[in-house]
Amino acid sequence: MIIVMKAGAAKKDKDEVLKRIRELGYKPHVIHGATRDVIGAVGDERGKLILQSVESMHGVESVLPILQPYKLASKEVKKERSIIRVSDTVTIGGKELIVMAGPCSVEGEEQIIETALAVRDAGAQMLRGGAFKPRTSPYSFQGLEEEGLKLLAKAREASGLPFVTEVINPETVELVAEYADMLQIGARNAQNFALLKRVGQIHKPVLLKRGMSMTIQEFLMSAEYIMSEGNQSVILCERGIRTFETATRNTLDLSAIPVLREKTHLPIVADPSHGTGNYHYVAAMAFAAVAAGADGLMIEVHSDPEHASSDGPQSLKPSKFAKMMEKLKLFAEAADRTL
Amino acid sequence: MIIVMKAGAAKKDKDEVLKRIRELGYKPHVIHGATRDVIGAVGDERGKLILQSVESMHGVESVLPILQPYKLASKEVKKERSIIRVSDTVTIGGKELIVMAGPCSVEGEEQIIETALAVRDAGAQMLRGGAFKPRTSPYSFQGLEEEGLKLLAKAREASGLPFVTEVINPETVELVAEYADMLQIGARNAQNFALLKRVGQIHKPVLLKRGMSMTIQEFLMSAEYIMSEGNQSVILCERGIRTFETATRNTLDLSAIPVLREKTHLPIVADPSHGTGNYHYVAAMAFAAVAAGADGLMIEVHSDPEHASSDGPQSLKPSKFAKMMEKLKLFAEAADRTL
Amino acid sequence: MIIVMKAGAAKKDKDEVLKRIRELGYKPHVIHGATRDVIGAVGDERGKLILQSVESMHGVESVLPILQPYKLASKEVKKERSIIRVSDTVTIGGKELIVMAGPCSVEGEEQIIETALAVRDAGAQMLRGGAFKPRTSPYSFQGLEEEGLKLLAKAREASGLPFVTEVINPETVELVAEYADMLQIGARNAQNFALLKRVGQIHKPVLLKRGMSMTIQEFLMSAEYIMSEGNQSVILCERGIRTFETATRNTLDLSAIPVLREKTHLPIVADPSHGTGNYHYVAAMAFAAVAAGADGLMIEVHSDPEHASSDGPQSLKPSKFAKMMEKLKLFAEAADRTL
Amino acid sequence: MIIVMKAGAAKKDKDEVLKRIRELGYKPHVIHGATRDVIGAVGDERGKLILQSVESMHGVESVLPILQPYKLASKEVKKERSIIRVSDTVTIGGKELIVMAGPCSVEGEEQIIETALAVRDAGAQMLRGGAFKPRTSPYSFQGLEEEGLKLLAKAREASGLPFVTEVINPETVELVAEYADMLQIGARNAQNFALLKRVGQIHKPVLLKRGMSMTIQEFLMSAEYIMSEGNQSVILCERGIRTFETATRNTLDLSAIPVLREKTHLPIVADPSHGTGNYHYVAAMAFAAVAAGADGLMIEVHSDPEHASSDGPQSLKPSKFAKMMEKLKLFAEAADRTL
Repeated sequence: MIIVMKAGAAKKDKDEVLKRIRELGYKPHVIHGATRDVIGAVGDERGKLILQSVESMHGVESVLPILQPYKLASKEVKKERSIIRVSDTVTIGGKELIVMAGPCSVEGEEQIIETALAVRDAGAQMLRGGAFKPRTSPYSFQGLEEEGLKLLAKAREASGLPFVTEVINPETVELVAEYADMLQIGARNAQNFALLKRVGQIHKPVLLKRGMSMTIQEFLMSAEYIMSEGNQSVILCERGIRTFETATRNTLDLSAIPVLREKTHLPIVADPSHGTGNYHYVAAMAFAAVAAGADGLMIEVHSDPEHASSDGPQSLKPSKFAKMMEKLKLFAEAADRTL
Repeated sequence: MIIVMKAGAAKKDKDEVLKRIRELGYKPHVIHGATRDVIGAVGDERGKLILQSVESMHGVESVLPILQPYKLASKEVKKERSIIRVSDTVTIGGKELIVMAGPCSVEGEEQIIETALAVRDAGAQMLRGGAFKPRTSPYSFQGLEEEGLKLLAKAREASGLPFVTEVINPETVELVAEYADMLQIGARNAQNFALLKRVGQIHKPVLLKRGMSMTIQEFLMSAEYIMSEGNQSVILCERGIRTFETATRNTLDLSAIPVLREKTHLPIVADPSHGTGNYHYVAAMAFAAVAAGADGLMIEVHSDPEHASSDGPQSLKPSKFAKMMEKLKLFAEAADRTL
Repeated sequence: MIIVMKAGAAKKDKDEVLKRIRELGYKPHVIHGATRDVIGAVGDERGKLILQSVESMHGVESVLPILQPYKLASKEVKKERSIIRVSDTVTIGGKELIVMAGPCSVEGEEQIIETALAVRDAGAQMLRGGAFKPRTSPYSFQGLEEEGLKLLAKAREASGLPFVTEVINPETVELVAEYADMLQIGARNAQNFALLKRVGQIHKPVLLKRGMSMTIQEFLMSAEYIMSEGNQSVILCERGIRTFETATRNTLDLSAIPVLREKTHLPIVADPSHGTGNYHYVAAMAFAAVAAGADGLMIEVHSDPEHASSDGPQSLKPSKFAKMMEKLKLFAEAADRTL
Repeated sequence: MIIVMKAGAAKKDKDEVLKRIRELGYKPHVIHGATRDVIGAVGDERGKLILQSVESMHGVESVLPILQPYKLASKEVKKERSIIRVSDTVTIGGKELIVMAGPCSVEGEEQIIETALAVRDAGAQMLRGGAFKPRTSPYSFQGLEEEGLKLLAKAREASGLPFVTEVINPETVELVAEYADMLQIGARNAQNFALLKRVGQIHKPVLLKRGMSMTIQEFLMSAEYIMSEGNQSVILCERGIRTFETATRNTLDLSAIPVLREKTHLPIVADPSHGTGNYHYVAAMAFAAVAAGADGLMIEVHSDPEHASSDGPQSLKPSKFAKMMEKLKLFAEAADRTL
């Protein structure tokens, strides 16, 4: 950590800071600058965010951290990229590009089985569908809950596709884990630390969506929460951040993909459906995500978007999804991926 | 709801849209425009977000909602401003400006009692302090948990100040409610709907912080979650939104105060400590919040910020807090408030 | 335009609004809603932003525009995509993907000629380089000015590549146009309307960069400024928007590409160098931009980035650029483009 | 400047960096850390942004600047607050709170004189009004240009109020300076460096508005552009930044006021009219700005907002303005200001 002193800070103030740095278990190192002094505090900063408190001391202008605060998620701890096993047929993070497709919400048996078969036939390797729905309005459809999980299991049986579904409450983590092949933490719960800890204690892979206003560093800290509880099977999902632009529902931050590939060994998938909020733009952004280096995609597909209980405007019909998958193969190949 | 058709949309498409609008229980009303048609769908939109799905239909360019999606939180339902009773001595939303002050985290008995007495003597009417701490890093101090609640209760006894403390997990809502006079939902949990529902079922006032990237409309929808479960005692707290600016930790959106006063009857408080993240700026923003119409303030005070386990840089020392309270009285008076 | 009246607005207020709408040359059309009335104002809204002033009238809650405010840039006016001729060898917007590469600033004859030859040999079809530099600091290198234009012309002669360079002042538009094949308007000048008007009066293509906090609609309005003065040869360039994320210099908004393809006939290129600010991420984002549908790319290449006078950290060395171009061919092919 | 090396960077890479630092005229200073080395480069960084180019070198993880890049605008150069003389009657930055009020655009003689008299009678000390208008749409009213300047001069004569008006083109700076008492640089031109340099060469005070997505540091760099050309009379104006929130036109960043007071000696005013875009919120935010420490306010007043050629929805009628001024006196007094 680097402590920048104010121009003209008193010697007494500097001495206090040096003393405090030593108390906290670091070794101070002073650089006398042209207009001000800078103090390096040598020692592992992780787990010692308390050092930030030095910023309140007299004569201190600012404190700059040097190390990233995450450890298990970092490439410094594990250099090779993680490949996470979801089922006998699906692993994420390897050469195969994984496509998870399905409706926003599970609405009924016919709907989910039909969609599962359609996305499988178009080439998807996993099914997605919501049983517990975090909705902005208390008056919106909240999901079929356990009944939805059962229908997803039926669709898995019918199609052979493992499925991912969201969990929104620590109390239902075990229930969801009984049914699902992979648990999803949604964007609105990406810093729900009680929930992150709970999914860190189970033995199922977790798809962690980036919060709407989360920096990449905070995103990795949320992954670290899960991993520090023992579950190393975390897949990161970029799904759009909140910006001033209103032409799209969110701004899909594809540059997060190369940044994350540099900083972490965890696999990265992209969700262009939530990222754009408009089915017109989904295919273009799916291709772009793969070109940027994504290990997988999450795509909303609904057989009847005009009647969907949620997120109709961003869902592809199965026929459009199949067309997209055809073209996606070309981009996967260009990216040296199989699909 | 207003459905805007594309320029040159086919008659067939328009007919389909009209049919769908009727199916959903609305009465359609067509306006033939210069270059395109616009269809008004007459009927109460609330609870019918499904109408948005019309956006996927052929020939539709966009769907514009007309009504706000919240009801209980709106001024249309309740015109007079709500005054919420926290204890025998404290109500929020009336003429008296309420100041809640205390440390970010409860760290020990001496610390919390000493701080409670200091902030009381300076004029604060409530104590704040964290027992369960939502921390970005799993390696940071996570709070004293139930032990912290007990210490807060002791500080209440010693000082006579009721206290507010954060709850971060649906499972501990009842525990926290046993001790606290008011429950706080933090910014990271502002769309943790499972938690919102649970605090909607208790009989204690809830201080709801605005999420970092929440629009004002979404903020009111989260209040609606609590209210729709039966608990009408919700106090809104503006605590800074995430923007590109890095000179402050967040950007305290004080314009949210007059906007909320126009849209809702619920009381509104501001948290300049989290809003700025820097104790140098806290007093100026506290004065500004009161001038903008806030019903109360939440201020971090720590007797030894250099040694605080969390948020040291944004905490005021008791002596600075007391000075701020002196000047605050002048602004409260200008705003026709008592303090 | 749709005027939403307040719930319970007085008849008198409604009558005033109807009168005013007629005065402004529109035909009003009232829809009586469940809780409030909505008035459609029929007539071409473009060039009549004054209608927004109705928002100040008594009883009016909000005014929603229906039409996009741009005309010449819109697909409603021109359905087929524009193909813009830059030189005998280069057109932008057709099947060929156009790559413009070169240094941020022209620094000397050897540097610019060497770079021009290197990027040409790697497959770029245009040279880029700054002679007039808009720098955040008055103390930073401001460019070689006219001398830089002369060196760019020499590099064009040596390499056969036409070049694009930035113009930052209405007074030097003619000078720059004498030398350059295409003029660039930088992000900081994207709403410098005096400059936009001036480049609208010349007969050279203009590359218009998106401003850092410009919505897509405002971006098209700036294009409209140029076009409304007579110059239809406008190429749009997405170069990153400002968000809260600090891991990249800007957030390259690739979803702007499919959105713009839907709304305008103008060609669209992407600048992943400024978009990310870090050469590590440039190749991934270049591939992604092409997959998303970009008509071209703008890439910073510097033979000695460690000694560059500006933007060193985001510049590729010629060898890395050549490698990127190899892989880019695969993505261009997948996108059905030639390169 | 602090150079952070990668964990495990080679000795050769470190030696290259040390060599380069010396070449650039700095003295390097190595701190051997627990997992990586950090190099301090001692020497005045200002005017040497080129050091950032070290970031491209092998083995370098990041480069952190220590000094602020502005000099003339900084408090390190001038400790006491600047008081800027606008006319015989008006100075900005002293104890007196200065209110500049008037219409967005000058529309005619009667309008501007009537408004000038009304705002003067309500207590404003300066008139504002646009003659050259930077409008997002080329089809919107662009201002009366020189005719507008003449009308402003007439209104000054009639009312005794000096006036501020915007300049949008380097070519018309001298013309505007002939008439106006203070020149305004608008938000869209806040990084139009050609214009900033030109207003730096005249001898009239300049009101510089913050760009919509400008950091506070960039804001001060734009002030530095003007000052480095010789004109020290710069007044900063916070007018709202662009965020995701749509309930207000912009988000007025009042925390910029205490931040700027800490970093610069220049006076700071706030513009709640553009900041909120809605006349309902103007008074509350004007009070808040004064409480936060603003030296002045800029307020849009129009005698007939429903018929204004621009910005009607955010303009106050003279009667509402007068009421606001009454209450403003109370807040000015609380802030120890005269009005």
